[in-house]
Amino acid sequence: MDDKLRAALGAVEAHAGGYVDDLAEFVRIPSVSTVPEHRPDLAAAAVWVAARLQRAGVPEVRTIDTPGNAVVVGRWQVDPALPTVVIYGHYDVQPPEPLELWESPPFEPEVRDGRLFGRGASDDKGAVLVPMQAVEAWAATAGAPPVNVTFVVEGEEEIGSPNLPTFLREHPDLLAGDLAISADGSMVGVDQPSLTVGNRGLAGCQIDLVGAASDLHSGGYGGAVPNPLEGLARILARMHDERGRVAVPGFYDGVKEPSKAVRDAIAALPRDEEAELAAVGLAAWIGEEGYSPLERLWVRPTFEVNGLWGGYQGEGVKTVLPNAAHAKVTCRLVAGQDPDRVLDAIEAYVQECTPPGLKASMQRMPGKARAYEIPLDHPSLAVAADSLEAVYGKKPALVWGGGTVPVASDFRSLLGMWCLYFAFGEPDNHVHAPNEFFRVAAMRRGTMATVRLLHDIARHADALKGA
Amino acid sequence: MDDKLRAALGAVEAHAGGYVDDLAEFVRIPSVSTVPEHRPDLAAAAVWVAARLQRAGVPEVRTIDTPGNAVVVGRWQVDPALPTVVIYGHYDVQPPEPLELWESPPFEPEVRDGRLFGRGASDDKGAVLVPMQAVEAWAATAGAPPVNVTFVVEGEEEIGSPNLPTFLREHPDLLAGDLAISADGSMVGVDQPSLTVGNRGLAGCQIDLVGAASDLHSGGYGGAVPNPLEGLARILARMHDERGRVAVPGFYDGVKEPSKAVRDAIAALPRDEEAELAAVGLAAWIGEEGYSPLERLWVRPTFEVNGLWGGYQGEGVKTVLPNAAHAKVTCRLVAGQDPDRVLDAIEAYVQECTPPGLKASMQRMPGKARAYEIPLDHPSLAVAADSLEAVYGKKPALVWGGGTVPVASDFRSLLGMWCLYFAFGEPDNHVHAPNEFFRVAAMRRGTMATVRLLHDIARHADALKGA
Repeated sequence: MDDKLRAALGAVEAHAGGYVDDLAEFVRIPSVSTVPEHRPDLAAAAVWVAARLQRAGVPEVRTIDTPGNAVVVGRWQVDPALPTVVIYGHYDVQPPEPLELWESPPFEPEVRDGRLFGRGASDDKGAVLVPMQAVEAWAATAGAPPVNVTFVVEGEEEIGSPNLPTFLREHPDLLAGDLAISADGSMVGVDQPSLTVGNRGLAGCQIDLVGAASDLHSGGYGGAVPNPLEGLARILARMHDERGRVAVPGFYDGVKEPSKAVRDAIAALPRDEEAELAAVGLAAWIGEEGYSPLERLWVRPTFEVNGLWGGYQGEGVKTVLPNAAHAKVTCRLVAGQDPDRVLDAIEAYVQECTPPGLKASMQRMPGKARAYEIPLDHPSLAVAADSLEAVYGKKPALVWGGGTVPVASDFRSLLGMWCLYFAFGEPDNHVHAPNEFFRVAAMRRGTMATVRLLHDIARHADALKGA
Repeated sequence: MDDKLRAALGAVEAHAGGYVDDLAEFVRIPSVSTVPEHRPDLAAAAVWVAARLQRAGVPEVRTIDTPGNAVVVGRWQVDPALPTVVIYGHYDVQPPEPLELWESPPFEPEVRDGRLFGRGASDDKGAVLVPMQAVEAWAATAGAPPVNVTFVVEGEEEIGSPNLPTFLREHPDLLAGDLAISADGSMVGVDQPSLTVGNRGLAGCQIDLVGAASDLHSGGYGGAVPNPLEGLARILARMHDERGRVAVPGFYDGVKEPSKAVRDAIAALPRDEEAELAAVGLAAWIGEEGYSPLERLWVRPTFEVNGLWGGYQGEGVKTVLPNAAHAKVTCRLVAGQDPDRVLDAIEAYVQECTPPGLKASMQRMPGKARAYEIPLDHPSLAVAADSLEAVYGKKPALVWGGGTVPVASDFRSLLGMWCLYFAFGEPDNHVHAPNEFFRVAAMRRGTMATVRLLHDIARHADALKGA
């Protein structure tokens, strides 16, 4: 091991005791982005992040306004010849409710059993501090990190990053780099390092069906007037075929079959299927024929009804023949699918499936995102795997996320960088739930791994710059 | 015309000026049965009815308690050799809300344009006074009505008459008779007398579908976990076949095809289909092949979804994979169908249609009722038709009600009497709505027709007793 790396790792060991105090201070700021009343707290969190970056040694820190919450950008241009990594995270958090389920108040962080409890401790405050600590360790020992670093820390991730794409598009020079690294993400197990190599995209809509001009009495009209509730049922019943495939014509346009490498990587993951089924109270997984459950969750697209309503929902009987029915739908998309074309296809198919006498319309929902999938032979994955193995003593698992993290595909499509997830939140961290926590040990181990990652990226600069 | 009838009709002409004052007094009592706070008003309305019957000359008036609101029974046993008619009506009313839409306060009756406005003016206070006024006219002239009369005036019709079947069952001797006459009902047009010869029955249930143990994230689980919203859609989509028939096996068990006489009577009704469609904002009727729209509404059974819900119904997107879905269903039944057997058939079919991984259950709803249909050759219909024609100058139309009025089938099944609807509410009376009214002229004409009906029933006593 080279001396500089050894020194930087030593600095992590020396400083790690203070990481948790830092995190506690950050968690104390109730930067809830979903609630307008918290705007001053979001501003305070941005100020805190900027100060933390400066304290880490980052020389060029700016807080840049957006129509929403500000983005904190911290740049350390060490040498134009070195590769540049753009490190992404966010300072906003989910609302803490229901408050009564917290064992300690969500914004009064408390350490118990080696875990710091508080809203945002894992998502994403603890996680975004990790790369800052790594840069700080390099700064404290080598005087600078081994690569150029640009931090991009936003304050609107929990509301779908509405201003981030425009921000990325408007600052191509400021944010230019060779590789993006997302500190927002998670590990697949508490002691199992992992590398997320893909995320599904998203396209959402609301389907509205209208029949008569108003609700009618089911005695006076039942049998001769079209019922939009049953009409909507007939439409939705045609959305999957008997093999579990989405039946919307054109839905799979552009979708490539998962490669053998992808299928092998997924099949290699150890899983306890019985325990996983028990956790959700099911006897078996369902889904598309010809794919394993994990493949269905990670590399196959879906059509999912998220909500359905119309008519009477109260106690007892109301003999109403309702005149409207509604469904909310989201599709998880995979590489090759365009959210707008998917919604076009759904819209046309809904019209085709609408029974006589009913009028269907579709509203497109915000939050569209393409899927993201980094090539499995991308050199950053091998570099990252080595860094993780050195710290955890085992190879990382390659995993996909079934959910949608638009930032990775945004970095790719808007700034031309692949995005490496390098994150240390664990699956038991109660993210978005009461009693969220981050392990004190994860802060130290994550920082060690990130110190190594920056070092290894520098060593493999040529491979990365060409990839 | 015989002298006694002439004298009784003369008494109606003489007294008719006072009918509206009587009705106003009755309407002033806010006897809203759906609201517990009005129980004293219901008791006051029962007292008012009992007093009104006594004033009409009815010698034997009793107010009989039930677990809910009392039933007022007024008997006039003129002669055991005469036929006995049991006259049904109710003294309770619908709630008046929304109050701001009333032009005059609902319980401060006001006469405008020959109409008395107020909650319950038509349903059923004005209507139930009509036969009392007819008996009073007979009493004032002949000293007694031409038949034995038993009034049964209940106070729970607007909440589904929960105690009436038990009441009928427990008082077979008190309520014995040859023909029931319902003063609750309506005419088919303002100047068009009509005789309602049937009503559909009712069977209702709630279908509940459950998947996983809790709501799940659609990113984390979408594609491998059964979605109960789509499952419910698949179940409900199978409830009708392509010919518009209910596809539940056994649903039509016992249903007889409408006779030629029934179909001819329905076809004979003049209708303005274009205006009727425009009124509900539709371009065409839908429904079961081989039947006219009116046949579908009146003499064919239905399966109607009244409500449907599950998952997220708010603004925007929530990427939830819900674990439960619900539907409320009511069926309108025709003669020959048993509500419990229909629900059994639905329950079995729902289980058969439930996709793998989901659990369906069914809750049976209160308010079950069999359909009612008096034979078209029942002698009371001819007698009633003559009485109506004599007053209105035109023959009554034979009509059915698509809704459910359990009392008619209860009189038939529990006391062995057919029930004749003889009612004078008009379709424009805003029943159950703001600005309900009853026409002053309807009180006079209805009373004239009822005076004639009682007379004609006596003349055709032999035919009626045998029917």
